[in-house]
Order: sequence, then C-alpha cells, then structure tokens
Amino acid sequence: MAGKIGLNVAQICLTKDCTEDEIVDELSKLNEDPRVRGVYLHLAPALLTGRVISTLAPEKDVDGVADLNMGRLVRGDPSEGFVPAEAMAVMEVLESHGVSSEGQTVVLVGADGAVKVALRCLMERRGVVTLNGHKSSESLQEQKADAVVLLGAGPAEVPPTWLKPGAAVIRCDSAWLSPCVGDTAVGVWLVVGVMGQPNMCVLVSLQNVVLGSCRWLREQQYQDWSLRLLKLQPLNPVPSDIQISRAQTPKSVQQLAQEIGLLPGELEPYGRNKAKVRLSLLERLQAQPDGNLVLVAGITPTPLGEGKSTVTIGLVQALSAHLKLNSFACLRQPSQGPTFGVKGGAAGGGYAQVIPMEEFNLHLTGDIHAITAANNLVAAAIDARMLHEATQSDKALFNRLVPSVNGVRKFSPIQISRLRRLGLSTTEPASLTAEEVRAFVRLDLDPSKLTWQRVVDTNDRFLRKITVGQASTEKGHSRETGFDIAVASEIMAILALADGLGDMRVRLARMVVGTSRSGQPITAEDLGVSGALAVLMKDAIKPTLMQTLEGTPVFVHAGPFANIAHGNSSVLADKLALKLVGRDGFVVTEAGFGADIGMEKFFSIKCRASGLRPSAVVLVATVRALKMHGGGPNVSAGSPLPREYIDENLSLVTGGCHSNLRKQIEIAHLFGVPVVVALNVFKTDTAAEIALVCRLALECGARAAVPCHHWALGGRGSVELARAVKEASAAPSHFQFLYETEMPIVEKIRTIAQKVYGADDIALSPQAEAEIQTYEQQGYRSLPICMAKTHLSLSHMPDKKGAPTGFTLPIRTVRASIGAGFIYPLVGTMSTMPGLPTRPCFYDIDLDPVTEEITGLF
Amino acid sequence: MAGKIGLNVAQICLTKDCTEDEIVDELSKLNEDPRVRGVYLHLAPALLTGRVISTLAPEKDVDGVADLNMGRLVRGDPSEGFVPAEAMAVMEVLESHGVSSEGQTVVLVGADGAVKVALRCLMERRGVVTLNGHKSSESLQEQKADAVVLLGAGPAEVPPTWLKPGAAVIRCDSAWLSPCVGDTAVGVWLVVGVMGQPNMCVLVSLQNVVLGSCRWLREQQYQDWSLRLLKLQPLNPVPSDIQISRAQTPKSVQQLAQEIGLLPGELEPYGRNKAKVRLSLLERLQAQPDGNLVLVAGITPTPLGEGKSTVTIGLVQALSAHLKLNSFACLRQPSQGPTFGVKGGAAGGGYAQVIPMEEFNLHLTGDIHAITAANNLVAAAIDARMLHEATQSDKALFNRLVPSVNGVRKFSPIQISRLRRLGLSTTEPASLTAEEVRAFVRLDLDPSKLTWQRVVDTNDRFLRKITVGQASTEKGHSRETGFDIAVASEIMAILALADGLGDMRVRLARMVVGTSRSGQPITAEDLGVSGALAVLMKDAIKPTLMQTLEGTPVFVHAGPFANIAHGNSSVLADKLALKLVGRDGFVVTEAGFGADIGMEKFFSIKCRASGLRPSAVVLVATVRALKMHGGGPNVSAGSPLPREYIDENLSLVTGGCHSNLRKQIEIAHLFGVPVVVALNVFKTDTAAEIALVCRLALECGARAAVPCHHWALGGRGSVELARAVKEASAAPSHFQFLYETEMPIVEKIRTIAQKVYGADDIALSPQAEAEIQTYEQQGYRSLPICMAKTHLSLSHMPDKKGAPTGFTLPIRTVRASIGAGFIYPLVGTMSTMPGLPTRPCFYDIDLDPVTEEITGLF
Repeated sequence: MAGKIGLNVAQICLTKDCTEDEIVDELSKLNEDPRVRGVYLHLAPALLTGRVISTLAPEKDVDGVADLNMGRLVRGDPSEGFVPAEAMAVMEVLESHGVSSEGQTVVLVGADGAVKVALRCLMERRGVVTLNGHKSSESLQEQKADAVVLLGAGPAEVPPTWLKPGAAVIRCDSAWLSPCVGDTAVGVWLVVGVMGQPNMCVLVSLQNVVLGSCRWLREQQYQDWSLRLLKLQPLNPVPSDIQISRAQTPKSVQQLAQEIGLLPGELEPYGRNKAKVRLSLLERLQAQPDGNLVLVAGITPTPLGEGKSTVTIGLVQALSAHLKLNSFACLRQPSQGPTFGVKGGAAGGGYAQVIPMEEFNLHLTGDIHAITAANNLVAAAIDARMLHEATQSDKALFNRLVPSVNGVRKFSPIQISRLRRLGLSTTEPASLTAEEVRAFVRLDLDPSKLTWQRVVDTNDRFLRKITVGQASTEKGHSRETGFDIAVASEIMAILALADGLGDMRVRLARMVVGTSRSGQPITAEDLGVSGALAVLMKDAIKPTLMQTLEGTPVFVHAGPFANIAHGNSSVLADKLALKLVGRDGFVVTEAGFGADIGMEKFFSIKCRASGLRPSAVVLVATVRALKMHGGGPNVSAGSPLPREYIDENLSLVTGGCHSNLRKQIEIAHLFGVPVVVALNVFKTDTAAEIALVCRLALECGARAAVPCHHWALGGRGSVELARAVKEASAAPSHFQFLYETEMPIVEKIRTIAQKVYGADDIALSPQAEAEIQTYEQQGYRSLPICMAKTHLSLSHMPDKKGAPTGFTLPIRTVRASIGAGFIYPLVGTMSTMPGLPTRPCFYDIDLDPVTEEITGLF
Repeated sequence: MAGKIGLNVAQICLTKDCTEDEIVDELSKLNEDPRVRGVYLHLAPALLTGRVISTLAPEKDVDGVADLNMGRLVRGDPSEGFVPAEAMAVMEVLESHGVSSEGQTVVLVGADGAVKVALRCLMERRGVVTLNGHKSSESLQEQKADAVVLLGAGPAEVPPTWLKPGAAVIRCDSAWLSPCVGDTAVGVWLVVGVMGQPNMCVLVSLQNVVLGSCRWLREQQYQDWSLRLLKLQPLNPVPSDIQISRAQTPKSVQQLAQEIGLLPGELEPYGRNKAKVRLSLLERLQAQPDGNLVLVAGITPTPLGEGKSTVTIGLVQALSAHLKLNSFACLRQPSQGPTFGVKGGAAGGGYAQVIPMEEFNLHLTGDIHAITAANNLVAAAIDARMLHEATQSDKALFNRLVPSVNGVRKFSPIQISRLRRLGLSTTEPASLTAEEVRAFVRLDLDPSKLTWQRVVDTNDRFLRKITVGQASTEKGHSRETGFDIAVASEIMAILALADGLGDMRVRLARMVVGTSRSGQPITAEDLGVSGALAVLMKDAIKPTLMQTLEGTPVFVHAGPFANIAHGNSSVLADKLALKLVGRDGFVVTEAGFGADIGMEKFFSIKCRASGLRPSAVVLVATVRALKMHGGGPNVSAGSPLPREYIDENLSLVTGGCHSNLRKQIEIAHLFGVPVVVALNVFKTDTAAEIALVCRLALECGARAAVPCHHWALGGRGSVELARAVKEASAAPSHFQFLYETEMPIVEKIRTIAQKVYGADDIALSPQAEAEIQTYEQQGYRSLPICMAKTHLSLSHMPDKKGAPTGFTLPIRTVRASIGAGFIYPLVGTMSTMPGLPTRPCFYDIDLDPVTEEITGLF
C-alpha cells in the first residue's frame, strides 16, 4: 500500500529480548536521518516506555503517541502533531455509520491509553457523548448506546442491553492481528485494522506519513519571518558601548535562526549567542528571489572614522524593527589588532550595535585564526621547501616527495596536478626522465621574488621587516621578509570573494607565492599545500549569525584589508542574507573607507565576482568630515578637536558638500546606482548645519539626504533613512561597470585614477611597468584592479582634502593576488601592519573573574 | 500564602491590549531566569494561544497546560510534568466526599479543555466512571451521579434528576472569582478556587511550584549517568583512522552531556560534536566526592611513539562501555604543527579514537589560537614599549600613559597595581615626583635579557631565530629573537595549571617577560597587558567535551609542550571529570613522553598545583620499545623497521624489561603509587613475547601487567587492563612527593637527576649557576622544577637506551616560567620549534567540496 502511494517503508526488526537502550539507539538514528519522515512504533507495551516515547522526534511520531502530540490533540491544535491512526480510523467508521453528531452516545470499552483519550477528544469536539464502559458499571446497563468501541486485544462480549438496535460495535485491535469477528444479531461488528490487508487503520497511518512529509516539504520552503524584537529604551546621556551591550539580553541564536526561517540543521551554534550558518541554505532556497542589496559607503573620512558601521546597523534596526521589513546587516569581522591597539571594537556604537559586542570583537568563531593558520602554513612550506631543495639532490628530493610505501611509489593527487601544469601526462613515477624529475621536484623559487608574507592578528610593528632563518639548523639560508596583519592575507580576500567550498579550494590552489628563477609563477598547489588550506578553512567559509541590539539578524563574515585588498564583507554572507530576507527584504552591506576606495572595489571586484547588483548606495557623511573638506583645520586621533568642529560653521560645511560630497556622489553615479546621503548626526551639529547638508546633498545629485540619530536612539533614530532607502531601492537602477576587464592593466588603472580619483593621469615607476608586463605575460591581464591608496584623500596625498584636481597619480609598484583574483597597484607606501601606541587600549581591558564580565572594551 | 511556605511571588501585569509578542517576550525572559521555578499564566483565553503555551518552558508550567505536560498526564507519567491545579483540587474535594472509587459516577459539565481532560484521566485511573454532561443529553436524565463537576464560568443549573441524594456539586471556576454558591437542597455545593482566600486551588498551585522546585533541586544534585554507548563492530584488517572515525556517527554533544549529568546551561556547544563546559559545574558539585584519578605514562619511547593516547582512550572505552564504570579520558589538545608536519593527528588510533578525529585535530574550540593571540600581544607590547621608551622623554611617556581626559588624569587599575609593586601608595598622578614618574614610566627592559618569544601553531623552522624591527619605522631598534610553537608558550602551561579564571588572571599577571637593566623582573602586569590576556583567554579556560568511538566522554584541554613545560592536560579538566564520574568512577589522564619526564612532572608540578592524587599509574610498554632498550638496532621515523622488531626475539625483550621497564616502574614507586603495565600489542608481537613481558613486569614490581588490543578491537580489547586498573585503584596508595619545594633549586635538580634519571650527579654550567642565583635572589626559590630533557633516554643522551648509569647530567642553562610556576633547567639543546620534512603530511590532506569529507588525515 505504501509503495502504491510512493512511500518507501523499511522495517527494523529488533530481537524479542532487546533492551530499552537498543530501541533508543535505533530511534536516535531515525530521528537524525533526514530521509525518514515517520516512524511506526510496533512494540510490546512493556517496551513502549516513557523514555522510548520521549526519544522519538515528535515530527516523526506518526503514531501520535509522543507526549507533545497527545498534548496538541487535547488542546485541539490540528496544525502540528499527529492523531493516533486507530482513533482516526474509528472516527471514519463511526461517521460512515452515522454516529458522529451532537447528543449521540458512544461507549468506549477497554484499557486506558492514547487511543482512548484521542477518540474521546475527537468525539466530544463533535458533541458526541462518550461513556467509559466498565462492564461492571451499572450505569451502562441503564442506557443504550449508538455505538460501542472495543479497544485493545482480547475478545470482549458486549451485553446486548447496552446497544440500541442496529448500533455499531467496533473492534479496534492495536496489534492489527485479531481475526475478523463479523456481524452479530444486535449490531454491526466492524474491525479496524487487519494486518496485511488494505484497511482503514493502515490507510490512516500512511496518511499521517504523507501529512508529515507535507509538513517537511513546507518547512523546506522559504519561511516568512516571525522576528521577535528586543525592546530598546535609550538613556540620555548615552552610556558606554559595553554598558549598552551588556544591558540587553540577546535572544539565543537558535531562537533568532528559527525566527528568520533557518532550519535547525543549518545552524552550528558557537555558544549561546553566535552560530555559523551552513551553505546548504543556498541550495534549499535556490528558487527564492533575492531581496534588495544596499551598499553603505562614505565620503572621505577624517582619521577618526565617520560611523559607517553604526549607520549600517542603525539602518537594519530601523528597517526590521520599525518599518517591519525583513533586513540583514552584513558586516566584516574586525581584526583583534586594532581592538587592543588604538581603535577599539568595531561592533557599531551607542544604540546601534551588534551584541554581545565582546564576542563580536574577540575570536568570534575563529575565522581569522583559521586564516592565520592557513597563511602561515604556506609560509612555512615555502621556506622549508627552499631549504630542502638547496640541500638535496634531485634524486633524494624525488625519493622523499614520492616515497616507496610497501615497495610502491605513487604520486598524490596534488602532485599529479603539478605534473599536469608542467605538461606531463604520466601518473607513473618510474616513467619520468631525469629532466622531468628535476622539473617536478624543483620549484626553484627565486628568494628575491617571493611575495608571500607571514601574518599575525596583532599590531606588532617590529614584524614589519625581519630576517628569518638565522638559526644554525637553517644552514645560512636566511632572508628578509615580514609579517602583515592577518586580515591583509590573500586568504582573507579569497574568503570574502569565494562563492562556495569548491570555488575557495580552486582559489587557494591558484595563489601565487613567488616566481621561479626561470620566471614561472609558483602556486600553493605547487607547494602541495592547497588541500590542507581548504581543510583549515572549511568552517571559516560559513558566515556567523549574530544580532543587533534590537534583535534583528546580522552576518559577520570576512574582513579583507581595505587598502591592499578590497575591504568588503563576504559574497557568501550577502548571498545567504539575500535569500533569507525574501523578495521585499533588504541586505545592507558595508564597504571600507570612502566611496572612492571601498565602493569602487565593491562594484569592480565584488559585484563582478558575485554577480550581485545593489539597488542603492547609502553615502555616510558627517558635519565634521564635511568641515574638514571645506577647509577646516587638521583632525587627528588623540588631539582635541579644533573649535571649528564644535561651533556652527556653515561656510566650511558648504565647502565640504561642494567638493568631497559632490564628487563621491558622482562616483556612485558612474556605476548607475541611486545615492541616499545619510548624515550621521553628532551632538555638536546644529540644526542649520544639518539642514544645509541635506539641502546641498540633493543639489549634488543625491536622491535623498536625511539626518540619522541611531547612535542616540537606535533604529528609531534611522527610520527616515530606512524610508529613503526603501524608496531609492524601488527606483530604477542602471548598473554598469566602470571598465571592461579585457582592457590592458595600465588602461584600467588610468580609468580609475581619472574617473574616480579625478587625476589628470597616472605615472608608472619603471618597476611598476616591468611588473605589469610580467603579469600580462603570465596571463593575468584580465583581472580587475584593486587600488592600494590612502583613504584620507581622493588623491594619493593624505593632506589634500575636498576633491583635489590637477594631480598625477604615481604607481610605485604593482602586485597581484591571483587566488583572490585581482591586481593591486600600490600608490605610495601602504602599511600592512599597524603598531601599538604608547598607551594601547589594552590598559583598560580586564574582566571580573567571578561574573566573567569584561570591562574597558569600547 | 506563598510567603508562608517560603515562596517569593512576583506578579507581572501586562496591559489589557498586550500583544502575543509581548507575552512571548515576557515568557522567554522567565524561561531563562534561573530564579523562576514556576509561572502561572493568568491570561484571557484568547491570549492563551498555542504559541504562548508552547513558549513557556514545560518545567516551569505549573498550570500544567503545556502540550508536553498534558501528554505526560494522559500517558500517566507522574515523574515529570504538572497536573492542572483545578483538577487536583477537584480530586481532593471528591475524595473528601467519598467519590473516588471504582464504579462511582461523576458528571463533568462545561467547556472542554485541559482541566476536563486532566480530571477525567485522574478519575478513570481510579475506576470512576465519568460522564460528559451536556444538558441536552438524555442519557444523563436516566441516571443519577455521585457527583457533578461544573467547569468554567457562568452559573449552571444542575437538574435535580441528575443527582443521587447527597451528591456533591462542585463548581470550579478557572477565573477564581465567582461568588460562593452554597448548599442546595439536592446536594452539597462546593467551590474550588476563590480569589484572595486560602483555597484548595491556590494551595495545589503552590504545591506545583514546590514540586517544580524540588525537581530543580534534584537536578542540581549529582546525576547518575545514563550513558548510551555507540556500538563498535571492528573490521579486520583495521581501516585507516579517518575511515573508522567517519564510519561512526557520534551522539550530539548535548545528548552526551545530558547522559553524564551536565545541565543544559553548563554547556556551550561548538557545532554538533563538541562543546565547552562551564566551570560553574565545580561549584554545583562541590559536595560530590571525586572519582579515582589514573595516570597513563610510558616507558622511554622509540621516536615512533608507543601509543599512550590510544591506551588512554581504549581504557576508558573498556571501563565505560564494558565494565559499566563511569569514566572520562582527559587528553591534551594537539598542536596543528605536527598534524600538517610529520606526526599526523593525535586523536588516538584504530578503534580507540576520539571522534570526529578531524575536529579534534583542527582548531577544536580555538584554545591554541587564543593562546597564540595572547602570547603575541605580550610580544608586541614588549617591543613597542621598548621603542616608545627609547624615543620619548619621561614627561611625554607619562602624559601618554596617563592621559588627561576632559582635563582629568587618572591611573587605570593595572597602573595602580604597578605603582604598588614600585612601593608607591599614591593614586594621584600629580603627586608623583620626577623620580617616581621615571620609575613608573620606564620598564627599562634589558634587550639582552628578554625571555619572551613569539609563537605560531605551525612547524616553521625559519622562525627559530630571527631579527625583528628592521623596517625604517622602527628606527634601528632591531634585535634577535625567535618564535616557538604555540604549545610551548608559558600561557599554555598556565592554562593547564590554573584552577579557575581568577587564578589564571593572577598567573598571567605574574609572567616574567624579561629583566630590567637594574635586574628587576618585568611582568605582564608591568606592561599593562594582563587584563587583556585574561579577556583573550576567558573561553579557552573551559575544557572541551568530545566522545570516544564508543560514545564515552572525553575532555580535551590544554597541551603544554612536554619538554620545556610539564606536558599534561589541564587541572581543570581533571577536576571537572572527577566530579562528573562520581565516587566509583575513573578519570584517565595522560602524561607526555616517558614516565621519567611526563609522570615526574605530573606528580611534582601538576599534583602539587591541583592537590589531586592518582590512585594508579598505567605504564604503557611495547615489545618494540622493549627490544630497543634490550639492545635492538636503531629505530627511526621514515626508515623501515629492522628484522629484530618484526621477528620473535625473547632475549631483546628480556633486556628491555630488566632495564628500562624496571627503572620506570621504580620511578612510579618513588611516589608511592601502584603500577599497572599495559602492553600495547602490535600485530607482529608473538604470544611468547607477550607472555614474557607480562611475567617480567610483575617481577619488576608492577601490580599487574596485561596485554591490550584496543587498536584492533576498541574497548573490548582493553577489558583486562580496565579490570587491573580498577583493582589497583582500590589498593592502598601512599602518595608522596619526591622533594620539598623549600629545598634549594640545585638540590631539587640533583634529586630528580639522581633518583629519577639514575645520574651520578649534575654539572651546572657557570651560566646556569648564575641564573639559579638570580632566581633565588628574585624570590623564586620555592618553585618546583620542570626538567627540559630529551624524551628518548632516561639520561640526557638520546642514544643511551635501557637504564643508563654512571653519567653526570649537564645543566646548560636554567629558565623560569613564573606565571606557570616552575623553574626549567635545560639539559642540552631543546628545540621549541619543529620543522617540516621534505614531504609533509599536508601533501595527502584534502577535502571533497561537496560532501565536505576530509581525506588524508591520520
């Protein structure tokens, strides 16, 4: 019967003397088996213990015996749970005999149990009077029933005095094995459930499996959100970030995940407050249309930063909590270096934060640590390989690289991959000529052309330039190299651009670590390390789910350095979030630094890699930064702000709007995307200044310009921005790339310099020219460009504020991240390793050993 | 009333128009509040929705309305759940009126609902016949009831024809607000539940809270284990480790935690298979007696290792799964360096493994990464501080270290702590003299006396000796230093020895990183970084719970390097496990290398720090290692084993037993602990060899000696060992320390050299003598000793096998880990950074991007 309706049935036979443990064991496996939609428990009553019943997952309990399902039935909730098949079958039979209406009487005879309770619930809901028939009961002898239901095994005799003429007697045997009894003089005997025959009870049982399957299928579909918001009662003055964060109790991440339609199996919790989300979600929601993608960028910032992260978080708090539109923020994971150095945390600020902020800022789910481990494994492999090549003959190298195991030499898959790149088709080690052996075993890396650096997630300036290999064991093979901060690793850029585990594996293999003496690029795959890198990164590829202060969802994932890399959060986080928010929802993602850098790279690199297109750009401005661009005095970290920034000064504001703000809006328009200017309001801003910025922003081409008060008020302070973003996203957008990737590298650089930065032209150093030539020869011409330029000016000169013109952009040197997939020209010197100040943040950071509460993080 | 019986009652008033969301919000908070034992839902029926009911945690549902509780009642399970108070109250009243026995009849009138279902369940369980009283029902008119129960609001008239004379009429108003109705002519009217009066219903409600509290209290007590074992069906030949690991589906870590009596709140899951366990457990089970602590040590190993980890895991599998004795293995977290280098994984092997082995071997829960971050933050702080001191005046340093914030200068707590160490009692920055300022701001570290190294969890030999600070930004302040492997960090040793967060914080502060030019030790606290270190390590301090192939529990925690540190897993893991296994249970913990190293340090350092005492030592031996000690040829990694190790050779075995085995047993006896020799059987071992080892081991003083087959058979192969360990643990043990800590450092070193290693004497280098003198002057005399000696021989000469005598132990240099709390003399050169071989393990490691399955890990 099951086969006829397309169900697969498997029978698990346990021995007669099986223990409770064995049953629980089997049930636990069935619970976890995603192919199983329902489990019938055909067990002797003594084995159907409370533990057994409570082990079976209620959604697979098609017998309807689990406590939860029985409770649902009693409460009369038909949307979940299962009704015991026998009870349903009896109801069908009663109905077909006309015994199902108000005031009729049915006697239930037999042992108490789930079926009896279920039957009574079902009948009484229709107004049928049910009597409990103990044969000794005198009350039954005084009245006639419309039907008698015999529950349980054993032939029962029904005294004719109980029955009205023509009344039905229904025998309901839970063992499904009793013989058919047939008609009697006083009534119709019906049998519910005979093994091996198509009968009512089996049919209803199968119906329950179908019901369970339908529910499972429905669960696999896109789920509407049922977001429970966290109430925010902002204080004035605004307390410290850690105080605000700690005052709010986040929902458990499982709760949050359920509210936004994630399935339990798609979540990997890391403690109570954060969880990795499996990429299988993308497959499950394949058919679901994407929501709207909104990019948050900024005008050229002061060295203090203008609050793009807080705007991003405030915006999703406003969208989700106040406009009731599904929304997701996609943020970058911060490096721990600045957290303990000078910048502090990066979880937003004030009443626009990701919570718990200390978990956001420390370790998170270990992704940066995984990148560090992977990056440094490559570095160790490079130096060790150079040493081994320098100290061993071709034969010795070959014998070690392809060792004889039980007398057999075999290439590993990763070695076969190297052979293919060398143009060798063999898989047989013995068949290689001496020359081929030499080509295979010697990467012959040129020490002067190694580009791979080690990394550490600490602000450790003394590692900027170092000499390694000075121990006697390294036999004099010392060389100069350096450490970058971990987020500057190419592996971080790959994590941010990969669109799946397979793609990441391919990109990791393709990373170029240096050049051989003969000029060939040498990759991680040549070192034999790319599989191990993928293994180290297999969990890091899953975005981490957290929440804002108002309980709305956030993905934290990847955080590539915004100067030598592209500085955007991950493609995968954006893609997962776009599916989750649904067609009318919003994903707000952030680009590092000013729009000339972060946004340009977002469009040229990330959009190209992902195929995603934003529907609007939010351009964050502050009165402070606008005054600086309008000609205000120098702003620097650690020094008090000059008066111009505290008192009203409309002319400086006007100057800033007409120069930097106008230019940054124009840059966004180069890509055809509408711009909403978000003025991040500080308490020193005057009403006239705020009004002025909003008016001038519109004059400069912004579609809307609104002041935001999320820092002081949370989402409520950004409702106007949320409305403007919603409206701008609905407007037509005509996205276009700035350049074709097929253009020569030099032309692509020139296009960015002229159109985006406003330079007259570029000036390549001889070194840069040579490097570009090499990359073009090596076949890397069609990669997009990732400019490494100061973020403090549209030009390459940090002190030129506003919108500089009349300058030539010097290109000092050009490097390549082949795995990540871009060429990065260096404009001036870029530091890839911050330092610690005299009094780093860590002086104030501590914890209470009893409460485990952290102090001093901000 | 609640107050009288010692219950605190709080009323949460919601507005009349409150939404379902608000109720769910309140309930969610109450669910998570550990102070709340029960919640009465006093809500209008329309608000008592399915969502509201299913939000309330069933263990706090003292109304008994949750589906799960109703299901339990229907099933008749009184051990959990709650019965609605009204139903219980009605039962009491009925009973007091004698209406509670078989065959009596009670009519229930009123709306369906939880109370009605509950009442019927309770009555029918006593044989009372219940009738559903619809007034229209003719059946009721034909018979007389012993009692009528009126459920729900509204005055109902009971037709006198329904009642037997003297029958009880019970009015049961769920709103508790109806007026008392009083007696009638035909029966006794009783009211259950009148607001504001001590009545039955309220009393029973309070009883439910008391019941819930009792359950909560019981839950807080020690729970007996209900371990569900995973079945093992060993194959022959034994497949690869990763194949065996992958073939077994681990229980979810939540499931495992529940089975061993952990509360949900004590667990922080990291994905499905591993979880951190909170230290609050120690407090909860404070009164619980500890189980037995068993130490696994070994004879002097070959370079291939003799399988201490597999013996440890096999032993707990045998104890828990086959002897049904609670047991826990406490293992060290492996460094990722060797995993990708030459050794492979460390999760055991064959059928004695921790699963999933790839999660054990990679990242785990990030503890080693946290240590790396903390260690390197100290290093960065040292170099940055030296640079800042070298380039700034006292005044500039002071102004930066104690900056004026809004015109006020204040010392941070960590700075006040430095002032105290300098003997300054002030807290007022302005009060310092110029000299005091100078003392405060200048650590004046002597670059030639820095002992702090950076670390990385990668086998990176080129970092053994490096020069840092060569970039122009560091202004020529370059210096020589090096990296160690992360597990060699003093912070790892601290993690392993700390007995709580507070203790760890103190130890981190106390770490000495170098010496000032005036000879003062400079600590992490002086650098101002110790609070930040504690913050970085706050999650690492919690042990990670995993499981063996047979589903028995394992703690993985810490993994200090076994040569320069003490090489044992953490004190905290042992302590937590000892509470969890209970009085008759076993905790099996492992010490690195041979008993002369790992075991001696376990006793002298870890037992001293923790106060724990083992009841037995398991000494792991192999026929292979015994043959080597008996004079067999050299054994080295990567070369085929000589014939002597494959063919039977009883004389070599005898030689090994009489030398190394005998000596290692004697070492254990120095500490007064009984020894069980575990012969880890290899397939080449002959029956005669096995029998010989077991016989000779007894002759050498072992309490028992048994062959183990856990690698091929899992726990079943180690049952004999488990029995012997159980028996040995029950025997009297007379634990004693080898030396008193108050002895001079030199005497302590000499004691170890002579009594443990068998040396004639020690020979201190002049450097070592000077260093010892310095430590004694600095007040570190009473620390225990952690010898850094080769593990390949009892002597300092790796090629001297057996039990060498007639040698003098040279002490080259002496260092100190003040935070961890030991002095470590270096005997010869100890490498603290392994290298990568020509063909590292990573060549074979890869993953399938679709299934995410890892290949090549072993």
